[in-house]
Amino acid sequence: MEILILHGVNLNMLGRREPEVYGKLSLEDINQILIEDAQVLGVSLEIQQSNHEGILLDAVHAAWQVKDGIVINPGAFTHTSVALRDAIAAVNIPTIEVHLSNIYKREEFRHHSFIAPVAIGQISGFGLDSYRLGLRAIVNHLRKLKADQL
Amino acid sequence: MEILILHGVNLNMLGRREPEVYGKLSLEDINQILIEDAQVLGVSLEIQQSNHEGILLDAVHAAWQVKDGIVINPGAFTHTSVALRDAIAAVNIPTIEVHLSNIYKREEFRHHSFIAPVAIGQISGFGLDSYRLGLRAIVNHLRKLKADQL
Amino acid sequence: MEILILHGVNLNMLGRREPEVYGKLSLEDINQILIEDAQVLGVSLEIQQSNHEGILLDAVHAAWQVKDGIVINPGAFTHTSVALRDAIAAVNIPTIEVHLSNIYKREEFRHHSFIAPVAIGQISGFGLDSYRLGLRAIVNHLRKLKADQL
Amino acid sequence: MEILILHGVNLNMLGRREPEVYGKLSLEDINQILIEDAQVLGVSLEIQQSNHEGILLDAVHAAWQVKDGIVINPGAFTHTSVALRDAIAAVNIPTIEVHLSNIYKREEFRHHSFIAPVAIGQISGFGLDSYRLGLRAIVNHLRKLKADQL
Amino acid sequence: MEILILHGVNLNMLGRREPEVYGKLSLEDINQILIEDAQVLGVSLEIQQSNHEGILLDAVHAAWQVKDGIVINPGAFTHTSVALRDAIAAVNIPTIEVHLSNIYKREEFRHHSFIAPVAIGQISGFGLDSYRLGLRAIVNHLRKLKADQL
Amino acid sequence: MEILILHGVNLNMLGRREPEVYGKLSLEDINQILIEDAQVLGVSLEIQQSNHEGILLDAVHAAWQVKDGIVINPGAFTHTSVALRDAIAAVNIPTIEVHLSNIYKREEFRHHSFIAPVAIGQISGFGLDSYRLGLRAIVNHLRKLKADQL
Amino acid sequence: MEILILHGVNLNMLGRREPEVYGKLSLEDINQILIEDAQVLGVSLEIQQSNHEGILLDAVHAAWQVKDGIVINPGAFTHTSVALRDAIAAVNIPTIEVHLSNIYKREEFRHHSFIAPVAIGQISGFGLDSYRLGLRAIVNHLRKLKADQL
Amino acid sequence: MEILILHGVNLNMLGRREPEVYGKLSLEDINQILIEDAQVLGVSLEIQQSNHEGILLDAVHAAWQVKDGIVINPGAFTHTSVALRDAIAAVNIPTIEVHLSNIYKREEFRHHSFIAPVAIGQISGFGLDSYRLGLRAIVNHLRKLKADQL
Amino acid sequence: MEILILHGVNLNMLGRREPEVYGKLSLEDINQILIEDAQVLGVSLEIQQSNHEGILLDAVHAAWQVKDGIVINPGAFTHTSVALRDAIAAVNIPTIEVHLSNIYKREEFRHHSFIAPVAIGQISGFGLDSYRLGLRAIVNHLRKLKADQL
Amino acid sequence: MEILILHGVNLNMLGRREPEVYGKLSLEDINQILIEDAQVLGVSLEIQQSNHEGILLDAVHAAWQVKDGIVINPGAFTHTSVALRDAIAAVNIPTIEVHLSNIYKREEFRHHSFIAPVAIGQISGFGLDSYRLGLRAIVNHLRKLKADQL
Amino acid sequence: MEILILHGVNLNMLGRREPEVYGKLSLEDINQILIEDAQVLGVSLEIQQSNHEGILLDAVHAAWQVKDGIVINPGAFTHTSVALRDAIAAVNIPTIEVHLSNIYKREEFRHHSFIAPVAIGQISGFGLDSYRLGLRAIVNHLRKLKADQL
Amino acid sequence: MEILILHGVNLNMLGRREPEVYGKLSLEDINQILIEDAQVLGVSLEIQQSNHEGILLDAVHAAWQVKDGIVINPGAFTHTSVALRDAIAAVNIPTIEVHLSNIYKREEFRHHSFIAPVAIGQISGFGLDSYRLGLRAIVNHLRKLKADQL
Repeated sequence: MEILILHGVNLNMLGRREPEVYGKLSLEDINQILIEDAQVLGVSLEIQQSNHEGILLDAVHAAWQVKDGIVINPGAFTHTSVALRDAIAAVNIPTIEVHLSNIYKREEFRHHSFIAPVAIGQISGFGLDSYRLGLRAIVNHLRKLKADQL
Repeated sequence: MEILILHGVNLNMLGRREPEVYGKLSLEDINQILIEDAQVLGVSLEIQQSNHEGILLDAVHAAWQVKDGIVINPGAFTHTSVALRDAIAAVNIPTIEVHLSNIYKREEFRHHSFIAPVAIGQISGFGLDSYRLGLRAIVNHLRKLKADQL
Repeated sequence: MEILILHGVNLNMLGRREPEVYGKLSLEDINQILIEDAQVLGVSLEIQQSNHEGILLDAVHAAWQVKDGIVINPGAFTHTSVALRDAIAAVNIPTIEVHLSNIYKREEFRHHSFIAPVAIGQISGFGLDSYRLGLRAIVNHLRKLKADQL
Repeated sequence: MEILILHGVNLNMLGRREPEVYGKLSLEDINQILIEDAQVLGVSLEIQQSNHEGILLDAVHAAWQVKDGIVINPGAFTHTSVALRDAIAAVNIPTIEVHLSNIYKREEFRHHSFIAPVAIGQISGFGLDSYRLGLRAIVNHLRKLKADQL
Repeated sequence: MEILILHGVNLNMLGRREPEVYGKLSLEDINQILIEDAQVLGVSLEIQQSNHEGILLDAVHAAWQVKDGIVINPGAFTHTSVALRDAIAAVNIPTIEVHLSNIYKREEFRHHSFIAPVAIGQISGFGLDSYRLGLRAIVNHLRKLKADQL
Repeated sequence: MEILILHGVNLNMLGRREPEVYGKLSLEDINQILIEDAQVLGVSLEIQQSNHEGILLDAVHAAWQVKDGIVINPGAFTHTSVALRDAIAAVNIPTIEVHLSNIYKREEFRHHSFIAPVAIGQISGFGLDSYRLGLRAIVNHLRKLKADQL
Repeated sequence: MEILILHGVNLNMLGRREPEVYGKLSLEDINQILIEDAQVLGVSLEIQQSNHEGILLDAVHAAWQVKDGIVINPGAFTHTSVALRDAIAAVNIPTIEVHLSNIYKREEFRHHSFIAPVAIGQISGFGLDSYRLGLRAIVNHLRKLKADQL
Repeated sequence: MEILILHGVNLNMLGRREPEVYGKLSLEDINQILIEDAQVLGVSLEIQQSNHEGILLDAVHAAWQVKDGIVINPGAFTHTSVALRDAIAAVNIPTIEVHLSNIYKREEFRHHSFIAPVAIGQISGFGLDSYRLGLRAIVNHLRKLKADQL
Repeated sequence: MEILILHGVNLNMLGRREPEVYGKLSLEDINQILIEDAQVLGVSLEIQQSNHEGILLDAVHAAWQVKDGIVINPGAFTHTSVALRDAIAAVNIPTIEVHLSNIYKREEFRHHSFIAPVAIGQISGFGLDSYRLGLRAIVNHLRKLKADQL
Repeated sequence: MEILILHGVNLNMLGRREPEVYGKLSLEDINQILIEDAQVLGVSLEIQQSNHEGILLDAVHAAWQVKDGIVINPGAFTHTSVALRDAIAAVNIPTIEVHLSNIYKREEFRHHSFIAPVAIGQISGFGLDSYRLGLRAIVNHLRKLKADQL
Repeated sequence: MEILILHGVNLNMLGRREPEVYGKLSLEDINQILIEDAQVLGVSLEIQQSNHEGILLDAVHAAWQVKDGIVINPGAFTHTSVALRDAIAAVNIPTIEVHLSNIYKREEFRHHSFIAPVAIGQISGFGLDSYRLGLRAIVNHLRKLKADQL
Repeated sequence: MEILILHGVNLNMLGRREPEVYGKLSLEDINQILIEDAQVLGVSLEIQQSNHEGILLDAVHAAWQVKDGIVINPGAFTHTSVALRDAIAAVNIPTIEVHLSNIYKREEFRHHSFIAPVAIGQISGFGLDSYRLGLRAIVNHLRKLKADQL
């Protein structure tokens, strides 16, 4: 079972600054924990981050027929990228949207997600745990799909 | 660690009808699985369901100084109950909002939650797993709080 | 053929006051006429009224697999209760929405019904006759359904 | 008691096509049933259909001081014709608005009626029965008016 | 002169928690002060609180022909309950709406009241004093009504 | 100087009913007064009324290169007819929009005119005088145009 | 018959600049023409202009029980001054709103008038003629009122 | 292959005026070119124009089971006619919407089309070429349909 | 304790006209009663009224470091004056907003107050009593502030 | 005559998946057909595709003074990219916007195009034919421009 | 070169209070610095402040043909005064709008300026420097205008 | 003092075309002038331009702990890029937003900036001078910060 973890825009800045606010974990730390979780869950991870919408789109396209599931934190593109929505819909890979912060506690324009309607579901507000729960959720989802197919 | 699981309006109908749509699990089945999860996680659960907004409000009030966390699926009250929002804010107990279906794939009026801005976070779209992930998330959240206090 | 007549919020006040405005008929009078109509139509009626949304929801749930049709005047809950809409959708019983007054002649917020999109149809503005036409409509609808099944 | 039945735009196409969707009844069939109902009810019917808003307006004007009541299915003009609303208000004849389909289950722009606020009431969603209930409703309404005048 | 004081949803939590924010007064303390005020003003009070919309509605209905005036703090129902508005309009008892906090300093959705258009007036932002001023206002209002009738 | 007076939809009903509301003047009376005014002003009038938008459009088209000015009371088409707006813009004849009633005292949807932005100006609220002032205004406007051309 | 002509904000600049745009007439020229018209019509005029909303309000108040009618061009206050609307409603003097330019050809925010709903009617787009038609309209209106009172 | 070309409201004025703006081609010229194109494409054309919405509706109805495709320029009815939309949906004939001008460069209210959602597609902004491309598009579309059926 | 009573625009007209509507009390009568109330309450009043926004602003500024509290009825400026809001925020004097009428029973545009978010609270709908309750409220508020400071 | 064909975001996925939905044609197939069309039309094509908005912008800039016309299918950027609009406006090259699907049959947010107001025109809904018609349209447009310049 | 510096409503309160928030500079201090800047720049300043919109309007009118440029901080009138916009447009003097605070960080209603569309440009958020940059900007703008005229 | 000048999308086209509209200055000319200004001000500049949002984001990230201030003209990204807003907020470097044109004179969608709420301030409408004033403003701002820290 191949899972793509996609970190969107600005997430490379995590942990580098204001550790009292965003926690001391860098994106690398998060990735390390996810890799360990993946080993426990018995799945394989590929992890990418980019601030370029186009590179994220290319990554989604590249996942076509290669990955079984996607866990994506699109960052600010959540609220503005119809292109990312269309890419996820196009490759038709089960996708879970995660957010570190609770987007519903923030500015009005962050309450709308272009991604959510094409995702399996959305997990928002649990910091690092949003990713970990998302990974667990996609694995469960894929196992149920497989079980249903048998 | 005392957790309140609160099932909102219409959730008593789960599993009783249209099993091909909503799955074969009844609310009792879900509750049983959550109780087992709780045992594994080493926490204590109280579970309630009501179609009466007032009873749900009373349950939230009763949790004050008694429960450590709440996992709530408010059902349709998500979109209409300012009262439930105020109750959760009043008791100031860490609360996680969960939804069986992905509310962002449904009618426009289901995209807005009065609860989310007073919750730790929101998990939407994973069926039974929304509850299981929510339980795990509240336990993790409370453990981190406790760790931070030490 | 079992029909549930559901009178929503504030309808218990009918006829008790301002008879020059709302007519001299009390809810009991209306119920009596509907019972007589039902006898003529050869169907069985159960009639309930409540000011508690939760009790109305419980009544809809209780109708599941028991009633063949529902005629509901949700009163003010028409405009605010997503929960009632979901309950009607959940039990999947053919339902007709009726209103004593013409809701489209009143305040803007009364022009929207959460119930109408899950009902067979809506009848609004004919006083007592809204109920009587609603009863006739549900009976006709159910008879056509039965005829189509044969 | 003279009743005008006014079929609005596109209703001449009824029954001619897609009988599995709209039923096998043509507009002529509907009219025949209404004429029979009228005989039972002891009232006289005049029936017109037009796709021309102007002809419908002329028909409403011609009803002034001639007809006692109107049952109108304005079709698409429901949502766009202020002129039709004004004509009905001008002749001041009790009018009932009917729709074959439940307009509240369809596109957002069909949820608004310019006619409803000047009608006695609205009946929507019962197919042929919308007309039959409408005819019954206007007759009842006129009989009550007459009774009140005595 | 019989006055009904109606405390809406969540107000039972007053004073029990966060006394530095909401003051040290419990709902019982407020009620005691209002009872003393009532004695000074020479009027009789009945006081109720409920988190159940239906119970509040029943209380309003029960006041019909029994109470001379109502002072209501509907809490969160202010912004969502058309049913409460209709109940107050139905019993036609002079009613004054009060709020502890200044609702115009809070979230946008709290700026709209379904109750205000059917109330004599609204008093918002004075804590306990909102109730005391409301009691004084209803007594003055009723005395003027009585004086005008003489 | 050739002026077209165009009476729109429903205006044929003027004076025939409710003389205490709309005055005792019929459309024929208004036309007679306008013809007398035209004689005093030394201009020639053609007057048409129709309830058919298409006939009004044809009349505007027919005025092209034949009429010097138009005074139009579009009635309800004011608020809905982009076609009429385009016709007036197309023939490029100076046009004045008049209304018997003050449309800004009426329903919100009557506050918007599709015609006004392509008219010289608008006169609203003066009953018969709206037409008389409109006729005077168009004559003055055309005389100034002619004077400017010399 | 005493008529108050009230020129609102910025109208003192008329004619002083850009005569090719606004015409060569100064406010004084307009006033002179209106005075001559008033003589012909046999009515008495008082004319004021101010850029101060407060002075315009005082002028409206001063007209109470002194003037029979008002012709007002509120300028930009048309779109922003609830105070002016209230003053006109308070003194209850028949008032006609006039505009030099066609406000419906200009920015969206100029399409709304706070004054129009409390005026007899509105005349917009005829330059100097807007005033002259307005004066004629108010005189006719007052004469009809007087005739009706006899 | 029978194609109906339907020219909507105001299009009869084409070419008669302002040739520097709309080109020197009259509607007759356009029709002549389309007839020639049709001959080249080997299809048969019927061409109608009307300023009467009702006549356009009748023409659409008459095309039922007679025409294979429709190319329609509804003119201003594009933005206001739900009736035309319903007629096209009712006859279920493949229809292409064309516009001479680019409607997205014009007023906001011209950006919305009631027709587009029931058409195969829309072509806007190419003058005469909009029709020619539309004719070519409908022929291609019908040929593909026929090919798919074989 | 120095209190400023500020009467806004159009309030000088009170009592002078339509006593059956607004009561027989003039602004002078109201002021006299407030002065008497102030004596009972042991506070000192300064009272001003103006129809000029600028004079009201100057009065608020002049209150800086001179007055302890303000009771203001801004009249129509409630809904339009950001300047008045900023002045009250700038001088940082506890301020109470009062309205004679219940602004929530009136036109939609009167439901919004620019002042309320910078006021302690708002009292609306009690006629003269709005002022008297407002005076009492500001005195109570200031006494509590003083008590808290001790 | 040099034409730039610009395929926007996600269009590289065409034909690779779900051939029953999007047809069996890959982007390469489409390009091949367009190249053949170009040869027939006697024009030269350059074709680019990118999922990177920046690369599309660079391509538009690079076309300045090099290309005579552009046919662009911006994909999802249609609805979000002000940058692309500005680039097209900046290079001032005649541009035609094409869409494979009928964007007016899809989600509301796809009905708005930032590109259309700076394009010659828009063609939407004809699959591969949208491009072919677009190519034909730009060639015709450029030939008319050239003819007009002679 | 004559420059008018216009300080709008509430700006007289600057520096007098809360120096830790707004800085220690009074309006007089700011004016003194601007006068010194003007000397360095070789231009002549006139400076006015008023809380009266009418006085600000008169000042703009008085600048006509007397001043070469205006730097205005309209304060709260920015968001509400169409009159001020019209005055600036009327005198046609190059005008620069400045704000001490960043209005885009504040309440939604402060994000809209009626003045900006008639100004050369807007400078917002730099405290005293907003004025100094504004003065520099108007001088540069006027010098370029003069240079272009030579 | 290290300042980053960031030119956003499409700004590379400056000066290359239509010099009569945008001036004869290329981006290189602007940069040269800014470099000279920087030397006079005694600060060090780094200047970048990109049409790729991702490259601009990377540049903002790279400025973290390296640059003291940013002057950014985001071009069209101003109105659409939440990502750029988040990047600026993340690096927490004082930033000033500048625009060549007055964005408040242009299309409605250009009136909103996602950047302004996270910037120190905004300067709009002064062409090249917007940059020069922006550079001066950031230097002043940083010097004040440094002075305050001493």
